[in-house]
Amino acid sequence: MISRYYSPTRVVFGKGAEEEVGKELVLEGARKVLIHYGGSSAEKSGLLDRVRTSLKEKNIPFVELGGVKPNPRLGLVREGIELSKKEEVNYILAVGGGSVIDSAKAIGYGLYNGGEVWDFYDGTRKPYGSTPIGVILTLSATGSELSDSSVITNEEGNLKRGCNSDFCRPRFALLNPELTYTVPKFQTEVGTIDIMMHTIERFFHSGEGLDFTDRLACTLIKDVMEKGLRVLEEPEDYDARASLMWASSLSHNGLMALGNDQRGDWACHQLEHELSGMFDIAHGEGLAIIFPAWSTYVYKEDPDRFAKMGHLVFGIEEKGEEGARNTIEAFKECFRKFEMPLSLKEAGIELSDEQLEELLDKATFYGKRTLGAFKTLEREDMKEIYLLAK
Amino acid sequence: MISRYYSPTRVVFGKGAEEEVGKELVLEGARKVLIHYGGSSAEKSGLLDRVRTSLKEKNIPFVELGGVKPNPRLGLVREGIELSKKEEVNYILAVGGGSVIDSAKAIGYGLYNGGEVWDFYDGTRKPYGSTPIGVILTLSATGSELSDSSVITNEEGNLKRGCNSDFCRPRFALLNPELTYTVPKFQTEVGTIDIMMHTIERFFHSGEGLDFTDRLACTLIKDVMEKGLRVLEEPEDYDARASLMWASSLSHNGLMALGNDQRGDWACHQLEHELSGMFDIAHGEGLAIIFPAWSTYVYKEDPDRFAKMGHLVFGIEEKGEEGARNTIEAFKECFRKFEMPLSLKEAGIELSDEQLEELLDKATFYGKRTLGAFKTLEREDMKEIYLLAK
Repeated sequence: MISRYYSPTRVVFGKGAEEEVGKELVLEGARKVLIHYGGSSAEKSGLLDRVRTSLKEKNIPFVELGGVKPNPRLGLVREGIELSKKEEVNYILAVGGGSVIDSAKAIGYGLYNGGEVWDFYDGTRKPYGSTPIGVILTLSATGSELSDSSVITNEEGNLKRGCNSDFCRPRFALLNPELTYTVPKFQTEVGTIDIMMHTIERFFHSGEGLDFTDRLACTLIKDVMEKGLRVLEEPEDYDARASLMWASSLSHNGLMALGNDQRGDWACHQLEHELSGMFDIAHGEGLAIIFPAWSTYVYKEDPDRFAKMGHLVFGIEEKGEEGARNTIEAFKECFRKFEMPLSLKEAGIELSDEQLEELLDKATFYGKRTLGAFKTLEREDMKEIYLLAK
Repeated sequence: MISRYYSPTRVVFGKGAEEEVGKELVLEGARKVLIHYGGSSAEKSGLLDRVRTSLKEKNIPFVELGGVKPNPRLGLVREGIELSKKEEVNYILAVGGGSVIDSAKAIGYGLYNGGEVWDFYDGTRKPYGSTPIGVILTLSATGSELSDSSVITNEEGNLKRGCNSDFCRPRFALLNPELTYTVPKFQTEVGTIDIMMHTIERFFHSGEGLDFTDRLACTLIKDVMEKGLRVLEEPEDYDARASLMWASSLSHNGLMALGNDQRGDWACHQLEHELSGMFDIAHGEGLAIIFPAWSTYVYKEDPDRFAKMGHLVFGIEEKGEEGARNTIEAFKECFRKFEMPLSLKEAGIELSDEQLEELLDKATFYGKRTLGAFKTLEREDMKEIYLLAK
């Protein structure tokens, strides 16, 4: 049983970290940079202007492409690739949250490998490299700033698909927690759930693991829960914002799976992707709906695994099935504190039978895959979970 | 306040990890390898033969240099540099524990930069690169397998000096916990103390830090303490050996200082280096002697910092000075369980006044430096601490 860990991103952490962007790009040999970003907040806050100034001071030419939306779209990725080709870009700078970084990663794949970029997301081709990527992070959530993954939505068929490879791990990440002070409450809430879930998914593997990794994982989950609640009260609590930001990175860079026999379960993420692909809910909301349903359906596979997490995160003393059920309830209570819906109904969604079948078609890649590791889920299992989530 | 984290080493972890050495060296473009190792145990266990076979299978030529001793010597480093030049080595493979890896790092500096290699250790020159290094780890202790540091002893004047730079971070580390099953009890004991102390030193910084990092740090210290005691009872407990091995890496790669305003205190390490340079004691023994003395001398600077560690590691509830004193006592009790001496006398050393002055001359670089960050130590402070350690 071999486990791998590779997290080569250079992290610059703290107040003013983004000011080092020019210096980092010089170190990296950036000749021409694509500055990739989302909406107007980076412009309004003055962050983009500070980035432009930093690059100009170092005489690094750049072009810009904004407009990345949540659930980043293939259309804009293609636009980014064309622009970068035309402008002979050799470095991509993502200024934003997970959607911007994921979009930058897709542009990096397309630019470096040529051909149809969607191939890497629908699995018909593997990338053999990527144009290098640097990050200035403005949102603590997806962990894409250190991760090997990116998720892109293809507008044709509304398909949301991921691609994982070490090639897309950012070369540097500039993490200034102060840049997240102005993140709206709802975004902070769903971001916090996402951070927690990246470690929870890794906790539920099958077979052997490492007790030390379990302890680190639960320390992270507990801390994220507490610091997340604190910033809801006090949005400019530096320590709490900083803890969330660094936890978002550590939750998804592979550290929390070291010693595990595989990458984790990930069924909740896959089942959720189809939900937020079909309905207008945030990824974090979808996870808060799916995790309790999934847990309720699978916990009997190994109740003590749930009880262990409950003990380390919530101090739950019971073992076995009772411990597992208490753990699931404790997570539901926690999600409620973050004002999450715990069912589709609570999210205002009435799932029709047709929609359910469509979710199952997509989640199984039309019968071509199962999900999960803690328990392998067939289509019928997924159906039960979606029904529990109703 | 900016904090940096960079840990690019590719980690392969688990049973049989060392079998990937040939594959890793091919990936790395190794043309000719120096296999560097210590005593006879790697030979007797068959590990070296497995390494040789793996390299031969991949048609990678190699030369060998064994004989690294604890507190690795400059003489052997020079021998390694000469041999590597003559044989046109472009890759160094360290097979062993911290001493072997540190010796390999020094060879890497000398080979890449040319000139007198000791310059990098006495601080008269900075390296601008290193010949790349890969590691097969056989001892959980120093964390050199992922760290940016190496410590070499110059036989002339018996000087023990360190050099830190990102250039020497190993490119890959193959970590098979089973390779540490046969580590003798005493080596396991002093190694465990060393692992704990790398995180403890980072915990005691001055000024701002990150609560999340404190929690991860104390989770590590607590785990190392418990797993260290477990392997004394059961040397072939895989999970405990694995936890210790991974904790040794995470304790010294920089993770446990993320968000701190500097690298940590390190006075205990510096004061200890002079002790084990002068007397025949292990580094871990010296740390177990110095840490209680240092703590007793400095805790009033910020008793709550000690109490916080005591709470997170030992569950100590008292705060302030009482909490600090209870924490120091708890660590002493812990070190006793690892059969460590807690004073020079217990280690069989009667410190003379002349020896004390020599220690102080060396620890202050003959009046040229202070030590510490939690509390800055002048020569007089160091004297008090050595006297408390008598």
